[in-house]
Amino acid sequence: MTTRRPFPLAKVYGLLETGPVILLTTAHKERRNVMTLSWHLMMEFEPPLVGCIVSDRNYSFSLLKAAKSCVINIPTVELAEKVVRCGNTTGARTDKFKRFGLTPLPAQKVAAPLIGECYASLECRVADTRMVAKYGLFVLEVVQAWIDPGVKDPRTLHHRGHGRFMVGGKTIRLRSRMK
Amino acid sequence: MTTRRPFPLAKVYGLLETGPVILLTTAHKERRNVMTLSWHLMMEFEPPLVGCIVSDRNYSFSLLKAAKSCVINIPTVELAEKVVRCGNTTGARTDKFKRFGLTPLPAQKVAAPLIGECYASLECRVADTRMVAKYGLFVLEVVQAWIDPGVKDPRTLHHRGHGRFMVGGKTIRLRSRMK
Repeated sequence: MTTRRPFPLAKVYGLLETGPVILLTTAHKERRNVMTLSWHLMMEFEPPLVGCIVSDRNYSFSLLKAAKSCVINIPTVELAEKVVRCGNTTGARTDKFKRFGLTPLPAQKVAAPLIGECYASLECRVADTRMVAKYGLFVLEVVQAWIDPGVKDPRTLHHRGHGRFMVGGKTIRLRSRMK
Repeated sequence: MTTRRPFPLAKVYGLLETGPVILLTTAHKERRNVMTLSWHLMMEFEPPLVGCIVSDRNYSFSLLKAAKSCVINIPTVELAEKVVRCGNTTGARTDKFKRFGLTPLPAQKVAAPLIGECYASLECRVADTRMVAKYGLFVLEVVQAWIDPGVKDPRTLHHRGHGRFMVGGKTIRLRSRMK
């Protein structure tokens, strides 16, 4: 993703409200991880707030709690195999970046790395943890967004369960007053 | 949707974690409404919990709070025009079912109607309102699910902002241990 550019925070909702599978990266001290997840939602336009479920059974949970930050990376279908391998593997004994050939790039505002192979990356700070104990729901504020401007109609992955993924299709336009 | 059948609650996550636009129906006393929304996420597999943002600026807000229940209906691309018209219109002065030609069908366990034209409908009870004041986030428990079993690869709508919708494309299968 050598061509990535800053992306306006006000437009971040359009990247996530389609519901793509994301790769959540975390880092704290000597540890880092990549986690595949689909359970996220937009909660506010600007500053963009994103809710994400990270269970305490996930290795990323302790990294996210400790670092209080992360990066949401959005892969496209070319990465499908790596997305699944990240989801099938725990980071407790494996550096998934090395094992699966994902390129960590330094973020600007958080410790976790961007993933070079993803077309968009959103640097986030943890904004609210009050729903973590009961639901594993972290409220994240996106503080810096990056995009590959060459990707206009990203063929994102959308999990249907048990290894089935719907791949993002064509985009249609309708006359809408909705933001 | 004359062919709709009960759908196992344990499989509901696979319908929603792809991130489709949904039509949320509510009803209380003489009032009812349909609301278009994209800001939702899965929070638990079983019983299925779904988080949904409904702002207090939406007409559906007071109905959802009063009835403590609703139906999540999932439209496909054939309904795109009606989905947008529902999103462009407030229910305060309009019965959207009549105006846009949507067929209300009786639900089994809640007051709000199913939408006959949608391929899946999830009857929900409000399970937790503690995040409503701050974020408009309702935690819903799905108590009864319905599906048109003839729809195998639903061409769902995924909002990209300002009238642009990604239409669900083909489904691929990978070897995954993820649920």
